[in-house]
Amino acid sequence: MLEELKQRVCEANLSLVKNGLVVLTWGNVSALSPDGKYVVIKPSGVSYDVMAPEHMVVTDRAGNIVEGELRPSTDLATHLEIYDAFPGVGGVVHTHSRYAVAMAQAEIDLPCYGTTHADYFFGSVPCTRHLTSEEIHESYERSTGQVIAETFRERGIDPAAVPAVLVRKHGPFTWGPTPEKAVENAVVLDECAHMALLTRQFNPAAESAPQAILDKHYYRKHGAGAYYGQK
Amino acid sequence: MLEELKQRVCEANLSLVKNGLVVLTWGNVSALSPDGKYVVIKPSGVSYDVMAPEHMVVTDRAGNIVEGELRPSTDLATHLEIYDAFPGVGGVVHTHSRYAVAMAQAEIDLPCYGTTHADYFFGSVPCTRHLTSEEIHESYERSTGQVIAETFRERGIDPAAVPAVLVRKHGPFTWGPTPEKAVENAVVLDECAHMALLTRQFNPAAESAPQAILDKHYYRKHGAGAYYGQK
Amino acid sequence: MLEELKQRVCEANLSLVKNGLVVLTWGNVSALSPDGKYVVIKPSGVSYDVMAPEHMVVTDRAGNIVEGELRPSTDLATHLEIYDAFPGVGGVVHTHSRYAVAMAQAEIDLPCYGTTHADYFFGSVPCTRHLTSEEIHESYERSTGQVIAETFRERGIDPAAVPAVLVRKHGPFTWGPTPEKAVENAVVLDECAHMALLTRQFNPAAESAPQAILDKHYYRKHGAGAYYGQK
Amino acid sequence: MLEELKQRVCEANLSLVKNGLVVLTWGNVSALSPDGKYVVIKPSGVSYDVMAPEHMVVTDRAGNIVEGELRPSTDLATHLEIYDAFPGVGGVVHTHSRYAVAMAQAEIDLPCYGTTHADYFFGSVPCTRHLTSEEIHESYERSTGQVIAETFRERGIDPAAVPAVLVRKHGPFTWGPTPEKAVENAVVLDECAHMALLTRQFNPAAESAPQAILDKHYYRKHGAGAYYGQK
Repeated sequence: MLEELKQRVCEANLSLVKNGLVVLTWGNVSALSPDGKYVVIKPSGVSYDVMAPEHMVVTDRAGNIVEGELRPSTDLATHLEIYDAFPGVGGVVHTHSRYAVAMAQAEIDLPCYGTTHADYFFGSVPCTRHLTSEEIHESYERSTGQVIAETFRERGIDPAAVPAVLVRKHGPFTWGPTPEKAVENAVVLDECAHMALLTRQFNPAAESAPQAILDKHYYRKHGAGAYYGQK
Repeated sequence: MLEELKQRVCEANLSLVKNGLVVLTWGNVSALSPDGKYVVIKPSGVSYDVMAPEHMVVTDRAGNIVEGELRPSTDLATHLEIYDAFPGVGGVVHTHSRYAVAMAQAEIDLPCYGTTHADYFFGSVPCTRHLTSEEIHESYERSTGQVIAETFRERGIDPAAVPAVLVRKHGPFTWGPTPEKAVENAVVLDECAHMALLTRQFNPAAESAPQAILDKHYYRKHGAGAYYGQK
Repeated sequence: MLEELKQRVCEANLSLVKNGLVVLTWGNVSALSPDGKYVVIKPSGVSYDVMAPEHMVVTDRAGNIVEGELRPSTDLATHLEIYDAFPGVGGVVHTHSRYAVAMAQAEIDLPCYGTTHADYFFGSVPCTRHLTSEEIHESYERSTGQVIAETFRERGIDPAAVPAVLVRKHGPFTWGPTPEKAVENAVVLDECAHMALLTRQFNPAAESAPQAILDKHYYRKHGAGAYYGQK
Repeated sequence: MLEELKQRVCEANLSLVKNGLVVLTWGNVSALSPDGKYVVIKPSGVSYDVMAPEHMVVTDRAGNIVEGELRPSTDLATHLEIYDAFPGVGGVVHTHSRYAVAMAQAEIDLPCYGTTHADYFFGSVPCTRHLTSEEIHESYERSTGQVIAETFRERGIDPAAVPAVLVRKHGPFTWGPTPEKAVENAVVLDECAHMALLTRQFNPAAESAPQAILDKHYYRKHGAGAYYGQK
C-alpha cells in the first residue's frame, strides 16, 4: 500500500543526507497519506546507504503498524502529534542539523535577521519549554509533540507561516504541505540558524529585520499576491 | 536571440553552485547585451539541476520580456537599476552567500583587512541604508537598486573599484564588466567576509590594512601598471 | 593470522577519512582479537591512499610485534593501556579531529548540552590532567593511557557509558565493543564538540541538559529497556 | 630542462587545490633545482583547471626567466629571498588559506596550543612586522621576503624547526626541504590556525602547551631520536 508515498518518503530521507543535514543514521521524514488515515515514516536506526522504499513503515494515526517489517522511527509519536495539531501538514522532518541543534541547546528562539529567513519563516522560530520529568518518563515522544503544539497555540504563532520549531535541548522539527517541502524547510532552517550565529558574531547587538521587510519577502513568495517563482 | 549570451549567463548561474554560494534555487546572474539594449537573466525559482540556456529570459532595459517562456528573477528590477547607474557594468550577480548575508544582516561595512580583499576591492564594501516603508511597499526591487546607486554616489565610492555592495538585511550584489567577472567578485566577496569574521574573532581590535598595501595590491592587478597574471 | 580483523581494522581506519576526521596521515584505529591475546593496529605514518589490510600490524598485549613488516602506530602503548584498564573494550580510536582537539587544547570537559550527546555519552566527556615531565620523558604513550584510566577511576566515570576522553593538549581517544563502534563514537564526539562550541556561542551561559533527558535518551538506546533501532 | 621538477611543482600546486587551500587562482609553489641554480615556479594567474607541467616557469636565482612562455608568479621575488636566507630549503609555498590569512590579518603569532602543532612547528609561528611605505613602493615582493628573513633572525627562530610564517596583513608562506613537504606544512599550518581559533573560542584564556610536550612531539618526529613513521 501507498507505494508511491513510500518512494517519496524514502527519497525525502535521502535528500537530508544530500543536503548535509545528517550524521550517521540521524534524522527522519514522514508523510501523511492523501486520505489522512496513514503515516509513512523512516524505520529506526537504519543506514542511509541501504535505505529503500520497502523499508518505510506505514502506521495508522494512533501509531499502530499497518505495514512494514521494521520498527518505525522512535520519534513517530512526535510526528503523529504534529499531524494532529496542525491541519494541512502533509510531511514532517526531524534532524540533528548542527546549527538548529545548537540553538535548541542554547535554549533561544531563532530571530528573523533578514530576507533569507523572511522568505520561509514569517517571524521568529520558537524554542519550546522544558519537558517536565513526568512528561519525559511517561510519554517522552508524544509529550514532545504536545509541547510543540502548545508552543504555537500559547504564543499565537501560525504553524503554516512558521513551519519549524526548536525543541529545547534536542533539535529541530519542520513541516509542510508535502514531505519535500518539509525537507526544504529543514534545509533553510539550518542555513538561517547558521547565518544568525554569524550575524551575532559580526554584531552582538544585531536587530531583527523590520516588519515591512518580513511582510514584503514573505508575501512575495506566499499567498494570493505571490510573484516569486513560476506560475 | 543572444544565444551565446544566454549560454554564458546559464553557465555563470551554474558556477554559483559550483563555488558553494547557493542553497536551493537562491541567487541569480544577469548580463547586458553588447549593444546595451537587452538584459539576459535567470528565470525565477527554477532548480539549478535542470537549468539550461533556453530558460534564460531576455528583457529590454525597462524590464519588459522580449524573449523567454518563464518569469525572470524577481530581482530583475534591481539588476536593471545597477546597469543604469553604473556605466561599464556588463554582468550583475545576487546571492544569499552565507558570510556576505551575515554582514548585511549585521548592518556593517566589510573593511579591508588585508591583501586578499585589496586584490579585488579598493576599500570597504559598503552596507546600504534601510529602505523606507514606502520604498518597500511601492517598488521594492527597483528601490533596492536605487539605494545601491545612492550609496556609492553619496559616499563617493567608484563602483568600478569596489564592485560589490551589501544590501542591509538582505545580502550581496556584485558586478563587473562581464557576468563571469561578476561571479568571481561574488566568490571573493564571500571569502573576504568569512576571513573578516575570523580576523575579528582572532583580534576584536583588528585594524584595516594600511593604504599603501591597498594601493600596491589593487594596482598590481588593475590599471596601466598591473603586472599580475598574463598579458 | 587474524586476516578478517586486519580487514576490519583497515576499513575502520579508512572510515575515519570518509567521515572527515583525518588530515594527512593522522589518526589510528586498533582492535583486540576475540581471544584477547592480540591487538591489530594501523602502521605509523602510512598514507591512507595506499593503506591495505596487509599493512596492519599485530602485536601481543605487551606491544611486541607478532606479525607485520611495518612499525605500529606510535600511539600503540596508549591503546594497550586502554584495553588493559577497560574490560569489554574491543576497539580503540585516536584522531586529531578538529573540535575535539580544540576542546582538549582548551583544557575543558565536554558537557552534555543536549540529546545528540546523551544518545552516545552518558554525561560529560572528561579532559585528563597534564602529564608530568617524568611521564612525558620516560613513557609518554604508556603514561597517556594510564592517565586516561586514572581519570575515569578517580572521577568515578563508567568507560562503557562514556566511551571517550579528551587528552589534555593532545586530542581525543574513543573506544567501544568493536572497532566500528569506536569509530562511530569518534564521529559523534567531534560532532558534539562542534555543537557544544556553537551552543556556547549562541548562549555563553548555556547549561547542561537536565538529568531526566540524559537518562531518557541514553536508556532508549542502551541497556535492557532500549527501543531505538532494530531488534 | 628540469622536466621532472616541473612535474613535481605542477603537482604540488594542484595539491593545494585538493587540500582545500585555494580559491580561484590564488596560491603558488616553487622548488629549487638540485644544483641550487634555478627556481621552478607556477605562472601568474593561470587557472588550476588547465595547469600543466609545461606552464611552469624556470628562473635563475636573480629571477631572470631561463625557460617558459608565461610570466612567473608575482610572488617570485619573495620565494627567491626565502631560498637565499634559509639554507636547506628546497620548496616554498604561498597561499591565501583562510585561517592563516585571518591570523595574519589579526596581526598575531600562532601559539603552539597542542601536539598537532608541536608535531610540525617547534614553537609559535611568527607574524612579521609591517612593511614600510618605502618597502612597499620600491620592492614589495622582495621586501616581503627580506622581512620574513629578518623576523626569524631577530627573534632567533630556526626556520628549519618552524617552517612557516604569517606575513602581516597578507597571509602565510611555508617551506621545507622539498616542495611536497612545503605543501604539507601549508596544510598543517591552516589546520593549526583553525584549531587555535576554536581553542580560544572554547577558552579565551587558553595557554600554550608545556615545553615538555613540544619537545616530546617534535623530537618523536624529527631528528636522530625520531620514532614516528617508517624507517
